[in-house]
Amino acid sequence: MDYKQAGVDIQAGNEVVRRIRSLARGTFTRHVLSDIGSFGGLFLLDQAGSSETVLVASADGVGTKLRVAFMSGRHDTIGIDLVNHCVNDILVQGATPLFFLDYLATGRLDPDVAVQVVEGLAAGCRENGCALIGGETAEMPGFYADGEYDVAGFIVGSVRRDRLIDGRTITPGDVLIGIPSTGLHTNGYSLARRIAFEVAGLRFDSRVPELGGTIADVLLTPHRSYLPVVRPLLDSGAGSGIGPGLLKGMAHITGGGITENLPRILPEGTHARIDRSTWEVPPVFRWLQATGHVPDSDMWRTFNMGIGLIVAVSSADSREVCDRLRGAGEGQAAIVGEIRAGSSGVVYS
Amino acid sequence: MDYKQAGVDIQAGNEVVRRIRSLARGTFTRHVLSDIGSFGGLFLLDQAGSSETVLVASADGVGTKLRVAFMSGRHDTIGIDLVNHCVNDILVQGATPLFFLDYLATGRLDPDVAVQVVEGLAAGCRENGCALIGGETAEMPGFYADGEYDVAGFIVGSVRRDRLIDGRTITPGDVLIGIPSTGLHTNGYSLARRIAFEVAGLRFDSRVPELGGTIADVLLTPHRSYLPVVRPLLDSGAGSGIGPGLLKGMAHITGGGITENLPRILPEGTHARIDRSTWEVPPVFRWLQATGHVPDSDMWRTFNMGIGLIVAVSSADSREVCDRLRGAGEGQAAIVGEIRAGSSGVVYS
Repeated sequence: MDYKQAGVDIQAGNEVVRRIRSLARGTFTRHVLSDIGSFGGLFLLDQAGSSETVLVASADGVGTKLRVAFMSGRHDTIGIDLVNHCVNDILVQGATPLFFLDYLATGRLDPDVAVQVVEGLAAGCRENGCALIGGETAEMPGFYADGEYDVAGFIVGSVRRDRLIDGRTITPGDVLIGIPSTGLHTNGYSLARRIAFEVAGLRFDSRVPELGGTIADVLLTPHRSYLPVVRPLLDSGAGSGIGPGLLKGMAHITGGGITENLPRILPEGTHARIDRSTWEVPPVFRWLQATGHVPDSDMWRTFNMGIGLIVAVSSADSREVCDRLRGAGEGQAAIVGEIRAGSSGVVYS
Repeated sequence: MDYKQAGVDIQAGNEVVRRIRSLARGTFTRHVLSDIGSFGGLFLLDQAGSSETVLVASADGVGTKLRVAFMSGRHDTIGIDLVNHCVNDILVQGATPLFFLDYLATGRLDPDVAVQVVEGLAAGCRENGCALIGGETAEMPGFYADGEYDVAGFIVGSVRRDRLIDGRTITPGDVLIGIPSTGLHTNGYSLARRIAFEVAGLRFDSRVPELGGTIADVLLTPHRSYLPVVRPLLDSGAGSGIGPGLLKGMAHITGGGITENLPRILPEGTHARIDRSTWEVPPVFRWLQATGHVPDSDMWRTFNMGIGLIVAVSSADSREVCDRLRGAGEGQAAIVGEIRAGSSGVVYS
């Protein structure tokens, strides 16, 4: 008995590694010292500037959005989802990405699928200026169903300690600015799939007229990165008159929706009041709610409802921040609520 | 329909997060600035010293060793395996760990199992002086079988650029020192399980007299960390007369065995000659080979065969390094081979 008989194909694995290596090289920045294949990825830290450097790290998956990829045989957007999700998770603390690693686990490795996934990862990394410096491709026979896999991402970014954003300066009267999502991003897929494929009985390629495409198109729309529109605000140095305090806090609206994510940055003794009349909930969420008869409170604690990032700023700065976001191409950025004293959590009106 | 009906239990998830948070806090070093639950984990980089800092990162899983944990219902050692595997992967480049994050994915979350896994992770992190600063616990209904999960780990360590170890100074005549493994570590489990549970027809609690315990005991023996015995050699500063070049290269013997891992650090035009008479292959490997009728070459490219770390040093330094390893408690460290000119790969004698 050899390893291949036990279900692990080392040759196919090596071929995948070769192709992954080439994709990863395309993401390398000048800080990358190692090639893929060394035991660890090497990243030279920029020591310019005398301030203390804080590393900000996050781990994430894409959840059962993967099932939509499996159904439709489209594996090239999952990697973009994963990178952008991770980028946003560290961006909300003021950090910009340095490097990324992935963990891709399969039952029997399908080289074409693995390469498609890594193509997405590499594309996501390039778009965010982030180096894909390593990862693990695990072939685990009998662990995942044929044609299925799971993928996790790990990102490290950095921020000067005096530029950390953590919400602690948020006070009553501050304003909340919402920036649109591109769809479900990577959260709420267990519920969304059940509604689309069980309650509504759709196939992945069924067209849903009110959503303007097939259900797979709609559900696979990639999670967007907020780095391009937020970075100009982070980069505003003290010399420009825009201090580090311009953005007091940011919440990435992921699993748990606004209901659970916004409170993560609110100081004790404050709550957020969100005015739902300030934006239009996109059709996909309205369709899911109507089709699945989902109570309002469940919708708002499950899905992002059209807002993927919420930024807290002082009311004095709100106009400038809105203008600058719109100047960076974010035409839909708008005030969606404010901070109030007392209680906790989110109150919707 | 709400989220729980769709198979995701947010309450159970929150309870796990609460327990995980407390376990993770027990690993925090003074560099950790954030608590678990912020979007990203925050790690303050030590800027002492003027040399350039290189971050070394690695991602890993534990492969199908997990199945043995599932069979036997023991989930508290898997985390130790994962942390130590990651620690060794960056140690071989001269790096010591800073922080760790995990990705734990389940079908239906069993809080007790999740907590056991994280207890192992936290224990592994504490033993290696590494902070568990974040992670993702993903509940993916229908994705993993009931009672099953997958877990991936991500580690970041650092090393001064002038102390990086990458094998490039290895030359013919250099000596290879082997340090024992504690068993299979985390590799070769698809083959090992097939031999133990299909060919030999064992149950997880079957005793195997020649292995001195149940097959689950033997197969679940944790992957060891080489940090405690190797760190004193890394810490030897130039002032001590021991330069950074004392350890020319190190290979962590993981999937692919000595056959595939040792060549990863060998410069072109050199190969390694391993003298298999210099150590005794432990009983578990002999039993697996005999029971599964596994060809020699497959054994040596699948399992570590009793050597989990190989260190390359100049012949002039070999005695000192062996003495120091033994002084650090590594009584079995011994010369297992040497570097020769020409060809590539590993030649066994």
